[in-house]
Amino acid sequence: MKKLLVLLLLFTVTFTYSQNDDDKLQLEKIYKTSLTNGKSYEWLDYLSNQIGGRLSGSYNAEKAVQYTKSQLDSLGLDRVWLQPVMVPKWVRGIKEYAYIESSPGKTNQVNICALGGSVATPEGGLKAEVIEVKGIDDLATIGKEKIEGKIVFYNRPMQPELIHTFEAYGNCVDQRYAGAMEAAKYGAVGVIVRSMNLRLDDLPHTGSMSYGETPENKRIPAAAISTNDAELLSGMLALDKSLKFYFSQKCKVYPDVQSYNVIGEIKGNEYPNEIITVGGHLDSWDLGDGSHDDGAGCVQSMDVLRLLKETGYKPKRTIRVVLFMNEENGLRGGKKYAEEAKGKGENHVFALESDSGGFTPRGFSFDCDEANFNKILQWKSLFEPYLIHYFEKGYSGADIGPLKDTGLVLAGLRPDSQRYFDHHHASNDTFEHVNKRELELGAATMASLVYLIDKYGTLLPKKVKG
Amino acid sequence: MKKLLVLLLLFTVTFTYSQNDDDKLQLEKIYKTSLTNGKSYEWLDYLSNQIGGRLSGSYNAEKAVQYTKSQLDSLGLDRVWLQPVMVPKWVRGIKEYAYIESSPGKTNQVNICALGGSVATPEGGLKAEVIEVKGIDDLATIGKEKIEGKIVFYNRPMQPELIHTFEAYGNCVDQRYAGAMEAAKYGAVGVIVRSMNLRLDDLPHTGSMSYGETPENKRIPAAAISTNDAELLSGMLALDKSLKFYFSQKCKVYPDVQSYNVIGEIKGNEYPNEIITVGGHLDSWDLGDGSHDDGAGCVQSMDVLRLLKETGYKPKRTIRVVLFMNEENGLRGGKKYAEEAKGKGENHVFALESDSGGFTPRGFSFDCDEANFNKILQWKSLFEPYLIHYFEKGYSGADIGPLKDTGLVLAGLRPDSQRYFDHHHASNDTFEHVNKRELELGAATMASLVYLIDKYGTLLPKKVKG
Repeated sequence: MKKLLVLLLLFTVTFTYSQNDDDKLQLEKIYKTSLTNGKSYEWLDYLSNQIGGRLSGSYNAEKAVQYTKSQLDSLGLDRVWLQPVMVPKWVRGIKEYAYIESSPGKTNQVNICALGGSVATPEGGLKAEVIEVKGIDDLATIGKEKIEGKIVFYNRPMQPELIHTFEAYGNCVDQRYAGAMEAAKYGAVGVIVRSMNLRLDDLPHTGSMSYGETPENKRIPAAAISTNDAELLSGMLALDKSLKFYFSQKCKVYPDVQSYNVIGEIKGNEYPNEIITVGGHLDSWDLGDGSHDDGAGCVQSMDVLRLLKETGYKPKRTIRVVLFMNEENGLRGGKKYAEEAKGKGENHVFALESDSGGFTPRGFSFDCDEANFNKILQWKSLFEPYLIHYFEKGYSGADIGPLKDTGLVLAGLRPDSQRYFDHHHASNDTFEHVNKRELELGAATMASLVYLIDKYGTLLPKKVKG
Repeated sequence: MKKLLVLLLLFTVTFTYSQNDDDKLQLEKIYKTSLTNGKSYEWLDYLSNQIGGRLSGSYNAEKAVQYTKSQLDSLGLDRVWLQPVMVPKWVRGIKEYAYIESSPGKTNQVNICALGGSVATPEGGLKAEVIEVKGIDDLATIGKEKIEGKIVFYNRPMQPELIHTFEAYGNCVDQRYAGAMEAAKYGAVGVIVRSMNLRLDDLPHTGSMSYGETPENKRIPAAAISTNDAELLSGMLALDKSLKFYFSQKCKVYPDVQSYNVIGEIKGNEYPNEIITVGGHLDSWDLGDGSHDDGAGCVQSMDVLRLLKETGYKPKRTIRVVLFMNEENGLRGGKKYAEEAKGKGENHVFALESDSGGFTPRGFSFDCDEANFNKILQWKSLFEPYLIHYFEKGYSGADIGPLKDTGLVLAGLRPDSQRYFDHHHASNDTFEHVNKRELELGAATMASLVYLIDKYGTLLPKKVKG
């Protein structure tokens, strides 16, 4: 009986707590300000339409650094700075070209793009027979004899039955990332991959790939073809295994270049050494303008600090926006930020990343211990009026991952993911596919969580230095 | 103490119940079938791209009746039929034209469309000074003297701070629906309304309006202008109250014509006289192709029956799909269906409508008594894996509204509403703005609720006749 009473008491306390009127009011202010006087959409417009795609090491990436720094400078934060980081520079070169040759002179042109990090095809392009596989494991089964001299075609689609599209992506992306290094071991001369896209369309989707330890002279070119073309190629192969595939790409790796993470902060007035970081990545792939991936996350993160200021909130802890450079093909920005934070003995208590598109926010996933997770769950009802229901343990974000440490709470914004992979790394990741309200709701949702974490702190913070 | 025990027991029972493995499995089957082998998107493609906008009384509406009936015929249902209903026929005529005249010969063209049901402008169009108001209440304050001979410009925007966009719509739409009949009382010669759209763009949004009891010779033409043009006109009026607005529209009301509700059903094998109805409306406005409003709801409703069949489920109760005609400008189909149902003493136990767009489903709102609502709430956890969290009391749908009766449970699918009013009643309510997965998730969500209602029944069903 006593246990029951305690349970009931706990329930009552929790309930009262989560209904805290000040918090309700502050969340109302944050959402209203974002929806009526948000800056995220205007910033994204500039980033997408005035700058555009901003692959690490490009002139556009540099322009994005300067632009976002200038915007942070204008917000009256306590400090804005650039954190230098060397980044890789891979350049696509002139547009790729590909076709299926079913008999000499009879060709079907194919929508193709080089994977980020790939080598070029030989001078004049590469033409070879094709062997279709459903994944890396198939290579061993098929054996070197049948693969040697051919182009390996990875054609395992994303699973439409999975509700979380990122899970479907996770189940497929090894083909893109490691497909070339694995196929090279079996003597393949090139790799083409079905685009990581849940729908059938004509757009090829790029993304990072790695050669791992493959020596330079053994590296084979890798490219993605559209889902429609993957279906076509697979269908044609079923009829004729001896057809040939041609592709030509002129991509190239240059030496690393200097770039920057862009950082701004509001100093905490009670616990300035406890740092809350909110961010996204400033670099993007080069085919679209990077509006969803991850312009959205950058402008939302910038607006988190502005929304807290606009609503008159004075943070107890130091709140930092970090626009990470080079998430897409190296994660150098995320690694650098964590390295310097650890070097300086900075005490990060919470880090939040938005890198899943600018769609209607549904909630967060948390990478933290049970105690902190349970504490956060008590705030869930505060978010219900904004249709934010999803609070689960899970993945946070690539850029904040390197910060991971005991006691630190990592979180990722989880927007609706159904349309994300229609645009991801493709030429239609563009501004017109971001809805202003959805973007602003995301910024407000992030600002609300940052507010609550700042106000109530996290459990078991590490010992504060300095 | 006893109360506490009872509470705890109730909690345990509820928990066990909602975790029912059969139900979990059936929902898994429904969602998987919809996402891998759904028909809704294919049907919508035809309805939108081969037929297009289908205003009541139009040839396209008739084609939509024939097409959907033929598709239902192909599903092997127990019965498919057309329910005759007379519908109004309003025709837009040639494209409307409008401009702001700031001084003689100096004009800005304006994006305009007649409101559904409006009379035409006089031969040669209508030109008059403009009086801007924020709503119908302003008319009395301003008074007849200042309104007489002028065009009343209703310019109260939808409130961006509301999370539920339908609430913002509800707070605005009186201007469109009743603006003309009210302004006519003060001697206005015409009415223009700011489009019911949360974003700023160039598209005028049509929609129904009524003259109420206004005699025919006192009816004044009413039209909507785009939000950008509303901002422009308001800004120009601030500088010059004597500017003139010109518009011309040739719309016309014809005598009522014969049309149909399209109905199909699977007979229940235990309680065939208990009827579960699921539907949307087949008519649409004429500017776009009616993909979201309400092609989506129709094809989802059709797929509910198909999904139940495909997954091998044999309904206990009779499950009916109803594609209602004339929701947009008359609700004749909904009224007719209810009238016949009542006339025949049919026992409807549950009715579900999808008429809020084909976006990612978030849940349902229920118009029913507490007992039934609490019963339904017990199923909530079954929907969580599909990110369906929203179960609230509220509005169901226009077409099923006339069925309302004691003991009957009415429900509306609640998709994400953030983008809905970007497209609603405008020329961009088109197929390419519907995402296949989002549409299919909606169909599966509806089918899942229909399955649970069919399996467990509703509380306090009415006495079954016949």
